[in-house]
Amino acid sequence: MSKVNVKIDAITARDEDYARWYTDVCRKAELMDYSSVKGFIIYRPYGYAIWEQIQAYLDRRFKETGHENVYMPLVIPESLFQKEKDHVEGFAPETLTATLGGDEKINDPLIIRPTSEVLFCEHFSKIVKSHRDLPILYNQWCSVVRWEKTTRPFLRGAEFLWQEGHTLHSSEIEARHETLQMLQIYNEMGRDLLAIPFVSGRKTEAEKFAGALETYGIEALMHDGKALQSGTTHYFGTGFAEAFDIAYQDEDNKLTHPHQTSWGVSTRLIGALIMVHGDDNGLVLPPEVAPIQVVIVPIQQTKAGVLAKAREVVSRLEAIGIRSKLDESDRSPGWKFSEWEMKGVPLRLEIGPRDLKNGVVLSAKRNDGVKAQIEDENIEVEVAALLKQIQSEMYEKAANFVEEHTTTIYKYEDLDYALNEKTGYAKMMWCEDQVCIDKIKDEHAATARVMPFDEQPFADTCPVCEQKASKVVLVAKAY
Amino acid sequence: MSKVNVKIDAITARDEDYARWYTDVCRKAELMDYSSVKGFIIYRPYGYAIWEQIQAYLDRRFKETGHENVYMPLVIPESLFQKEKDHVEGFAPETLTATLGGDEKINDPLIIRPTSEVLFCEHFSKIVKSHRDLPILYNQWCSVVRWEKTTRPFLRGAEFLWQEGHTLHSSEIEARHETLQMLQIYNEMGRDLLAIPFVSGRKTEAEKFAGALETYGIEALMHDGKALQSGTTHYFGTGFAEAFDIAYQDEDNKLTHPHQTSWGVSTRLIGALIMVHGDDNGLVLPPEVAPIQVVIVPIQQTKAGVLAKAREVVSRLEAIGIRSKLDESDRSPGWKFSEWEMKGVPLRLEIGPRDLKNGVVLSAKRNDGVKAQIEDENIEVEVAALLKQIQSEMYEKAANFVEEHTTTIYKYEDLDYALNEKTGYAKMMWCEDQVCIDKIKDEHAATARVMPFDEQPFADTCPVCEQKASKVVLVAKAY
Repeated sequence: MSKVNVKIDAITARDEDYARWYTDVCRKAELMDYSSVKGFIIYRPYGYAIWEQIQAYLDRRFKETGHENVYMPLVIPESLFQKEKDHVEGFAPETLTATLGGDEKINDPLIIRPTSEVLFCEHFSKIVKSHRDLPILYNQWCSVVRWEKTTRPFLRGAEFLWQEGHTLHSSEIEARHETLQMLQIYNEMGRDLLAIPFVSGRKTEAEKFAGALETYGIEALMHDGKALQSGTTHYFGTGFAEAFDIAYQDEDNKLTHPHQTSWGVSTRLIGALIMVHGDDNGLVLPPEVAPIQVVIVPIQQTKAGVLAKAREVVSRLEAIGIRSKLDESDRSPGWKFSEWEMKGVPLRLEIGPRDLKNGVVLSAKRNDGVKAQIEDENIEVEVAALLKQIQSEMYEKAANFVEEHTTTIYKYEDLDYALNEKTGYAKMMWCEDQVCIDKIKDEHAATARVMPFDEQPFADTCPVCEQKASKVVLVAKAY
Repeated sequence: MSKVNVKIDAITARDEDYARWYTDVCRKAELMDYSSVKGFIIYRPYGYAIWEQIQAYLDRRFKETGHENVYMPLVIPESLFQKEKDHVEGFAPETLTATLGGDEKINDPLIIRPTSEVLFCEHFSKIVKSHRDLPILYNQWCSVVRWEKTTRPFLRGAEFLWQEGHTLHSSEIEARHETLQMLQIYNEMGRDLLAIPFVSGRKTEAEKFAGALETYGIEALMHDGKALQSGTTHYFGTGFAEAFDIAYQDEDNKLTHPHQTSWGVSTRLIGALIMVHGDDNGLVLPPEVAPIQVVIVPIQQTKAGVLAKAREVVSRLEAIGIRSKLDESDRSPGWKFSEWEMKGVPLRLEIGPRDLKNGVVLSAKRNDGVKAQIEDENIEVEVAALLKQIQSEMYEKAANFVEEHTTTIYKYEDLDYALNEKTGYAKMMWCEDQVCIDKIKDEHAATARVMPFDEQPFADTCPVCEQKASKVVLVAKAY
């Protein structure tokens, strides 16, 4: 990092207090602010712009795979909410309920949606009649409310923004394929957009979504060694369809219940971006998801030609689709360097009178501070190449971190080393008895994250109970 | 219209029952469905896709004019809501209030936002410090809730989707300019996207937004002669800023209250589209806003080459950015014609074995049923030209309708003719005394819509009280 990089209003170092570092980044990079209601945050322009990038990527992928957007009501009558037993048990303790319309009491109180399964199901029961109506591939962008006791910006909110996909299929295999296809799209979003190497796999019985037959998850590893569940996809079988009377005439005119899925990611991904890539100078954004990919800081900007050249560079970059910003405020260059480093802009370009004379600009990469000199005529090509390079370096670094912080354990006594010294994932065989996971939770405050795909058994006993085991599970402390 | 255009499940004719025709179009064109809570509708894919087109247009225009998107909380504590007196009086009777979090009573009940002025103001009071922080140009896409007694799809809902812009400025003139600039963007959206000639102007004192010093509106004229308020922009002066302690150090270090605006349009615009352009066969969408601009209906689609040709045409149209759909379902062509006419797709192309042999396709315009034959090699150019033509024909037709249904009146006794025989707007001079408007409301169930821009006084007395008048006002029955 440059020597001038001293910001008076500095953020807490990660080693000093990781939780405070996180909150400092959230606030000082102007991603969010608190409102007067606990857990309801304000998404400031810079934070919301990151969400818009995520939305744009996913919305395109969803539409390419045949999904359509809809919008369901904000509220669910209490009586409707109670129709699917497992579901209501999962969500009831954390619902926000409206009981007053104007001055009058509402007879059937209205739950502010914590998720919209029952709303989709009620609608599906009306519109699905024939096998011709299937598949139904819907998605919704909205906010949901969960009345949580402990809240943290982006990670756990009383209100958060998300997308929820809800689909109906005529066969189990098609529905199961959908569940995995959407998981794969989330994985590709990690790789291509967020530079986050998600680990994905099946969730254990105990960690399944309320009402699902199968839940899959994507997990990201924060640099404090804790895992963050970053998205899930669910296969419901025909359970909701039966509870809500969703049925269609199949090709033999038999009345049949369709197979159902749902899947979602939320603004929690912004928390993942902060804790996977950030450093003691603030946010570090991968170029693909960065609202501003290149910031141009003029040096001695009052000198003849400097601002004109800076503006020319911005235009040239924008002309090839690079999101660029010229900071021509009256702050000092040093102040600007810190400010844009705090905000995680992937690449900074500096232009001063000397550069102007030499026909060059200086570049500084946010992810590793490496500087270079770029000839004027090569600006477009080299900036584009640098952004590509930063994206792949950030992904590589995060992938190496996951690899280094995944410890295969064979004995229960090694779990402490894996979780507390190495930190990160402990990879172990599992007997599939929840008792063993509960013991880990009690003694190590860690949970089963996923049973990862493509992992071959590497032993044949569970290290906790020493009984026969054939499944691999990743255990970690988690947010 | 074509002879085959007979749909068994036909909609009510407009002359028979206009209100039922409207609801029929909403439901049978699959724009929306009802949920189990009154006034909370489901935006189905086709209806939501229209909203996405409107969002895409406006979001681009907002960003081009320097606005940034944010997201504020869904809920407003009752105590905060009561801070601006006029505002709370305007909205209190129609608020939905949450009083239960989990099983516990919430001490300061939470109002589900009916609009977000107070949330923006509370946030502004924290982030605005210096004149350097101004202007603040924010917009939010969200849903809002108003506990209305009488609801109709898109026109008046307990919940609806909208955008709300909220801005702060260091001077009155800049804030007033913003208020008019956004009104102008709404007007241009009408002209360029919706093919709706809005009439715009200032609202009367009585029709102003709760808390505003000045409210401007855009009004659309439905084909039953009623006006529909389709969007508003507000200049607040410094009233909210004073109530919420929003102040900044100006360039002379003096603590100063900024000038504020807000502005919004909602999914009500979908209602306007239906009632300005629709006909007895259903929806008629202007090409610019249509989710599907061209539908290709194959004739005798099992005959060799027909489907292949139809697919080729879709690809060619999509390659030049025309939103196209091939209907290769096993329904009859006649059924498909009615279905896509009902959904208002601007242009239909038919391709059958004979057309294939002759190297042509047949086109049919939704707005006037005019058919033509297009040589294969000209498809791209002619389809693009037809879409342009349809857009401008629809705008012209709507503009002529407004002109024909605007009656200048000089005497009070002519108001009945203007409102009930001609229907539409009565243009009259007004003394600016609300008593005269109240009399019109009592005796004719009509209201002052706007005091239109660019209208010169054409007489010097108010036809109601016969006192001196210098303002022109448009009076109409309204939704």
